Amino acid sequence: MLVGKRSWKFQNTPAITATGVTGGPFEAKSPLKDDFDLLYDDLRMGEKSYEKAHRLLLEEATQIALEKAGIQKEDVHMMIAGDLINQITPTSFAARNLEIPYLGIFGACSTSMEGLALASFFVNYGGAGSIITGASSHNAAVERQFRYPTEYGGQKPPTAQWTVTGAGVGLIQPRDTVQGDAVVTTSATIGKVKDYGLKDPFNMGGAMAPAASDTIVGHFQDLGINPSAYDAIITGDLGKIGRETLLDLLQKEGYAVPEEQLQDCGLKIYDETMPVQSGASGAGCSATVLYGHLMNKLRSGELRKILLVATGALLSPISFQQKESIPCIAHAVSIELDDGKGGSGL
Amino acid sequence: MLVGKRSWKFQNTPAITATGVTGGPFEAKSPLKDDFDLLYDDLRMGEKSYEKAHRLLLEEATQIALEKAGIQKEDVHMMIAGDLINQITPTSFAARNLEIPYLGIFGACSTSMEGLALASFFVNYGGAGSIITGASSHNAAVERQFRYPTEYGGQKPPTAQWTVTGAGVGLIQPRDTVQGDAVVTTSATIGKVKDYGLKDPFNMGGAMAPAASDTIVGHFQDLGINPSAYDAIITGDLGKIGRETLLDLLQKEGYAVPEEQLQDCGLKIYDETMPVQSGASGAGCSATVLYGHLMNKLRSGELRKILLVATGALLSPISFQQKESIPCIAHAVSIELDDGKGGSGL
Repeated sequence: MLVGKRSWKFQNTPAITATGVTGGPFEAKSPLKDDFDLLYDDLRMGEKSYEKAHRLLLEEATQIALEKAGIQKEDVHMMIAGDLINQITPTSFAARNLEIPYLGIFGACSTSMEGLALASFFVNYGGAGSIITGASSHNAAVERQFRYPTEYGGQKPPTAQWTVTGAGVGLIQPRDTVQGDAVVTTSATIGKVKDYGLKDPFNMGGAMAPAASDTIVGHFQDLGINPSAYDAIITGDLGKIGRETLLDLLQKEGYAVPEEQLQDCGLKIYDETMPVQSGASGAGCSATVLYGHLMNKLRSGELRKILLVATGALLSPISFQQKESIPCIAHAVSIELDDGKGGSGL
Repeated sequence: MLVGKRSWKFQNTPAITATGVTGGPFEAKSPLKDDFDLLYDDLRMGEKSYEKAHRLLLEEATQIALEKAGIQKEDVHMMIAGDLINQITPTSFAARNLEIPYLGIFGACSTSMEGLALASFFVNYGGAGSIITGASSHNAAVERQFRYPTEYGGQKPPTAQWTVTGAGVGLIQPRDTVQGDAVVTTSATIGKVKDYGLKDPFNMGGAMAPAASDTIVGHFQDLGINPSAYDAIITGDLGKIGRETLLDLLQKEGYAVPEEQLQDCGLKIYDETMPVQSGASGAGCSATVLYGHLMNKLRSGELRKILLVATGALLSPISFQQKESIPCIAHAVSIELDDGKGGSGL
């Protein structure tokens, strides 16, 4: 149901009943490594190209989620996913191999929450009984396409971010599929494209912060709530610099979000010993951190209600060469533990 | 509501209340030229690049639809659209300028029906009161990216198809927004990725026919209907060769669809005097033919009920270079005139 200008409330609170999270060798050194289901020690993962490895990450994450839920791929009604690669081929090739009806989406690094918002809406209204949704990225495939092949050894400024090699997916099903506790989605806010004229592809976090602010403020206004409704507001991949900018922007909008309440997946997945400049990025960043680490915190009750705000930079190498600025977007989904001990009042 | 394995019925029959269709100088010679709202006589459309012209086509088509409906862009809840260009930048830049909450989708030339299916579902269940959905392509931008820049003068085999320069959008609103007659959507079927191992990017129609067949057969089975339910079953851009293949495939599946009932947007938009080899293609092909020509036939009652099956080839130049075959998909939406003189029984 539409609430306000661009938010949905999910009265039937669809559940994230199973998840699958895969990663590469760099992610195996992550402080969140225990939240991954499968970590490859080879960046090629036995495939002939990085793009094929990218496809494998998503395919395996999906298979893992289906195994955990004990359902066959033939019984999944839909797969809603995307990635950063031209024509999202890694995702489409995974959908070919999985043989699940497929809706391809593109929101760059906001893809994870675009997918979860759509999947939640469909399940909420009986449009599907089981949907796989998620996103993925592969460092070497993305770097080659958007910047330089890693082998060139190009230098990066401190504002640059490290593209995550990984895939995260969730299986979305009606709340009554599971008895007892469940992690559910309760609302979503669809982003507008925001562009403050930044043109530096090595400072995505700074470019994306206004889109995150716009969506978060829109979410509060549409639902008539304020930041205290959430244990944490967690952005996708703003990194250090983008997060600082977002704190400022929210303050100017009249929402003084406490430092510790505003978190970022891109700052969680790697620690200070890892040479990632301003933090992590990539469509797989928010997807792996949500469906791995954050889902575990939600399942345990350590977190009870979060707003996940995935941010995406909608540029292409061609638009950059044509001297266009970087249009950005953010989609938000609120996710909470439903354990009968008091929820959000929905 | 889910029907069968992968179809939706839209009981509230969302209406396509207004449309906007733009095209380029080649489309100005089309037998369907009178069904376009705006035709440019310059392929660059006064812009500095073909990609920027591409963006303009979609932006103008949207503005035209909104003007016809008499609503402001601020009152549109969502834009669901995509195109063929890397990272769908023409669509995202249009969404930036239009400032409408935006869901980017990618289904190659199936994008038009992916968008219409999603928009219909959301409007059907009150997720939005007004959605703009559509797709676009630009011949020179697409040719440069997928094959060769037009200026190279590369030869093409008879199986090749001509990418449409054009954008088609529809404004989707609840049925009761309009009094009296309306063209409405009544069901949709989501495609699976099908890949029969074809690798020739100059024979997309042949590669896409199995995906079209799979979706059409799935649609009939899910809804318990047969081809006679429709005045016409109209594919997106199979072209001559793909259409022949589809007729054969449907016959093998036990559905002997009469020649004249199976039509193709890619064969309608250009006539035999135009040098387009096997017909037209591009994300703008089914979008311009549906939201222009076919909508006019539906409004007049010349057509009362059609199944539009938009087909997409989900390859990229990289996947082709890596010797991958071409994965294809088709999404179908049934569209009918609701004029109180008997409908589909929904």
